[in-house]
Amino acid sequence: MSGHMNPEEFRRHGRQVVDWIADYLAGIESHPVMSQVKPGDIRRALPPAAPERGEPFEAVLSDLGRILLPGITHWQHPGFFAYFPSNASGPAILGDLLSGGLGVQGMLWVTSPACTELETVVVDWLAGLLGLPEHFRTDRAGGGVIQDSASSACLVALLAALHRASGGRIAADGVTRRYTIYVSSQTHSSLERSARITGLGAAGVRVVDVDPRTLAMDPGHLRALLDRDETDGAVPAMVCATVGTTSTTAVDPVPAVGELCRERGIWLHVDAAYAGVAAVCPELRWLNEGVAEYADSYSTNPHKWLLTNFDCTVLWMADRAPLLDALSVMPEFLRNPATATGSVVDYRDWQVPLGRRFRALKLWAVIRWYGAEGLRAHIRKGVALAQELASWVSADPGFEVHEPHPLGLVCLRPVWPGLAADAADRATMRLLELLNASGSVYMTHTRIGDRVVLRVAIGGVATERRHVEQAWEQIRWEHAALSATLP
Amino acid sequence: MSGHMNPEEFRRHGRQVVDWIADYLAGIESHPVMSQVKPGDIRRALPPAAPERGEPFEAVLSDLGRILLPGITHWQHPGFFAYFPSNASGPAILGDLLSGGLGVQGMLWVTSPACTELETVVVDWLAGLLGLPEHFRTDRAGGGVIQDSASSACLVALLAALHRASGGRIAADGVTRRYTIYVSSQTHSSLERSARITGLGAAGVRVVDVDPRTLAMDPGHLRALLDRDETDGAVPAMVCATVGTTSTTAVDPVPAVGELCRERGIWLHVDAAYAGVAAVCPELRWLNEGVAEYADSYSTNPHKWLLTNFDCTVLWMADRAPLLDALSVMPEFLRNPATATGSVVDYRDWQVPLGRRFRALKLWAVIRWYGAEGLRAHIRKGVALAQELASWVSADPGFEVHEPHPLGLVCLRPVWPGLAADAADRATMRLLELLNASGSVYMTHTRIGDRVVLRVAIGGVATERRHVEQAWEQIRWEHAALSATLP
Repeated sequence: MSGHMNPEEFRRHGRQVVDWIADYLAGIESHPVMSQVKPGDIRRALPPAAPERGEPFEAVLSDLGRILLPGITHWQHPGFFAYFPSNASGPAILGDLLSGGLGVQGMLWVTSPACTELETVVVDWLAGLLGLPEHFRTDRAGGGVIQDSASSACLVALLAALHRASGGRIAADGVTRRYTIYVSSQTHSSLERSARITGLGAAGVRVVDVDPRTLAMDPGHLRALLDRDETDGAVPAMVCATVGTTSTTAVDPVPAVGELCRERGIWLHVDAAYAGVAAVCPELRWLNEGVAEYADSYSTNPHKWLLTNFDCTVLWMADRAPLLDALSVMPEFLRNPATATGSVVDYRDWQVPLGRRFRALKLWAVIRWYGAEGLRAHIRKGVALAQELASWVSADPGFEVHEPHPLGLVCLRPVWPGLAADAADRATMRLLELLNASGSVYMTHTRIGDRVVLRVAIGGVATERRHVEQAWEQIRWEHAALSATLP
Repeated sequence: MSGHMNPEEFRRHGRQVVDWIADYLAGIESHPVMSQVKPGDIRRALPPAAPERGEPFEAVLSDLGRILLPGITHWQHPGFFAYFPSNASGPAILGDLLSGGLGVQGMLWVTSPACTELETVVVDWLAGLLGLPEHFRTDRAGGGVIQDSASSACLVALLAALHRASGGRIAADGVTRRYTIYVSSQTHSSLERSARITGLGAAGVRVVDVDPRTLAMDPGHLRALLDRDETDGAVPAMVCATVGTTSTTAVDPVPAVGELCRERGIWLHVDAAYAGVAAVCPELRWLNEGVAEYADSYSTNPHKWLLTNFDCTVLWMADRAPLLDALSVMPEFLRNPATATGSVVDYRDWQVPLGRRFRALKLWAVIRWYGAEGLRAHIRKGVALAQELASWVSADPGFEVHEPHPLGLVCLRPVWPGLAADAADRATMRLLELLNASGSVYMTHTRIGDRVVLRVAIGGVATERRHVEQAWEQIRWEHAALSATLP
């Protein structure tokens, strides 16, 4: 039979894996950023059934390099400008490895007190680093918790909001009234999903207009929608304001939106998934405007731009009670003396799943390795490179740059003289395909004012000025070449 | 400033961490199983704010050993018999480390094709290993997907069930009818939570009686509840049958329950979180009875007893369409040519979060390292040790053993001659406290027929016969000592 991997074998194979990763990261530029495989290529190269007998660990590493690597889109490649960065860093990888080695499950305080208490400490640290309000701290009425993603943070915030809006009745009675939530056309799609999941349906989602220039939510239209719904007998449960939208990093006017929420007692969730961590830099602290005064909940993702491997979203609440009331169910097998005293945090009540990994270790390792200085330097570098790129784009008559672009994302539109809007958009998509097929960059697109634009998201760990320069050269070159083939 | 950890630094610190883990696992018996710290002890030992300057990685390792370790409850300790096992294994830890090193995010096929395709392959492998039906395979109408936990798998199954029961209208309109779900008093609490989350509320949860001896769901009572609800105009959306309940590993009669579901077109979810993976052994294949014929969805947790570090729940569906319809939202920034062809799987539509880690790597590494043989040997060892313990308990007049106990869990009740039920239960809880305070074992309790019993869950990677023997000796000894102090 094949037995367990003993500690000495673990030591040996562990070194092999560490070396594999070090070599992979050192040589990452040798791979095309975006995988060039066709659907089914990887699947067909793997055996259709599990092996009957155990295999040496070297076989896993060999197949990883031979079969899987061509199917990897390299998120840590310096030419990865797609979506938003999803930073991996040495300390985060190793912090997570420690979590794997300990193999503890922190659903309750008692099931590993350090797993809970370190999490409380590091989310408090992070709140301090970002200049978030004191009342988000767990020793006040609020508190922070690590979630797997901003989607889950939004869902959890909505559950708390519904609990409060229903006077606590929704957990017992379910959705018996018409609850509504308010987003903009630029809000992340996870909000519509959360409305579906919680039984409000798309019918419960109101889409607030945005300023056509900045793409920020229009508080005047929000007020009109709230007035109409309240007149119609609906119960507004939550407004989601976004600081740094996914499409273009637009920033909703949190103070104005928050004032409307406060007047009417509506839960304000601030989704700062991408941008929130940038507030580690004092000069970007304006991103927090209105949060201390108005936010009932706030989330940001260290797993995007703050060097902490996915998954690590932090959700803070001004008052944790509605969430705990919404999610607490206490079966006999989870009862224990520590929980009974009420003196401990049981994070299982703060999230959808019951079980949880020791994710605080990786965030702790990141914050200690980099220090506040190192975190700021990383954000500043991404912002500076993006600003430099934007200046090159706006100086080139062949392109238009979308304003504003205060962070690490630059949205740009190639100009196609003589082409109508539809044909121009198709040409832009063709340009994107050519860029991504080249293997040296990976970008995505979005629409602004119904026109296709390219998104260039800067902030990878390995991305240096020369990579941004090369990407810009390549965009210009492909644009010129493609233009020459057009009528 | 503090910069990134370069590949050579990563190599060095990676080896330190690998050695730390190897030493930790080799010496794990030197720690008390259950942490003996008091609430706040760990938190107070950590600095109140993040460091301004970066620190060497050695500082993290040093504080891990000095400050955090006393606050760890050691789930991989051979004396851990609490809850269910949450196996960590060498290949799983290293597979997860590779996932961290690659740092890819597999929300869409295109964002790393290998991340999606390896997942499809390994969940198909696992379905084959467990003898699950062909129609669960992704190349048929069904398909499997890795979720973070059985709680999330139940939630996702319920969303699919509600989609089907509402004729697809719930995503648009929300909960506008009285949908009901059916569980037993022994069903995992995550089902009640899922009902709350999806807007049904506790009012939508029907609790079916159980056989007082086996604690399995009573299909006759289920039929009566369904009849009453249908007469009352409610819409039964889902029945959850459990194979191996959390409290006592009771097995609901899936064929009889499934027949009722089929007659009425109700979604049957089978929650086999703990027990399902045991079907890797042909002699335990009876656990699957009725699954092929009746289950619309089925989930089990390799992260419990199948050697794959948390988090790794696999959810399979007989028909994936209702789930995808329930959860798909396609914003512009996620559109891509591969998805547009319809020829690829985008797992983001199969789960609540948008982003996802490359969790298939750890399951792949486990299955290849152990092979089917090794996985079977691990399950068989746990079952054999549990059966041996049960035989010792039932031969001892000082204890009663709960029957049946077909897997790795033994529930036992100490007898306290002369004590009324309440006082006896208090004595049992006191016994449990003494055992857990000893540092050599960690157990939990549950209630059967309103009487407190101790749960001894066997199946840890490091747990050998001698550890079970020692635990039993200790239970007997503490019971005798405590008995002597009672009136």
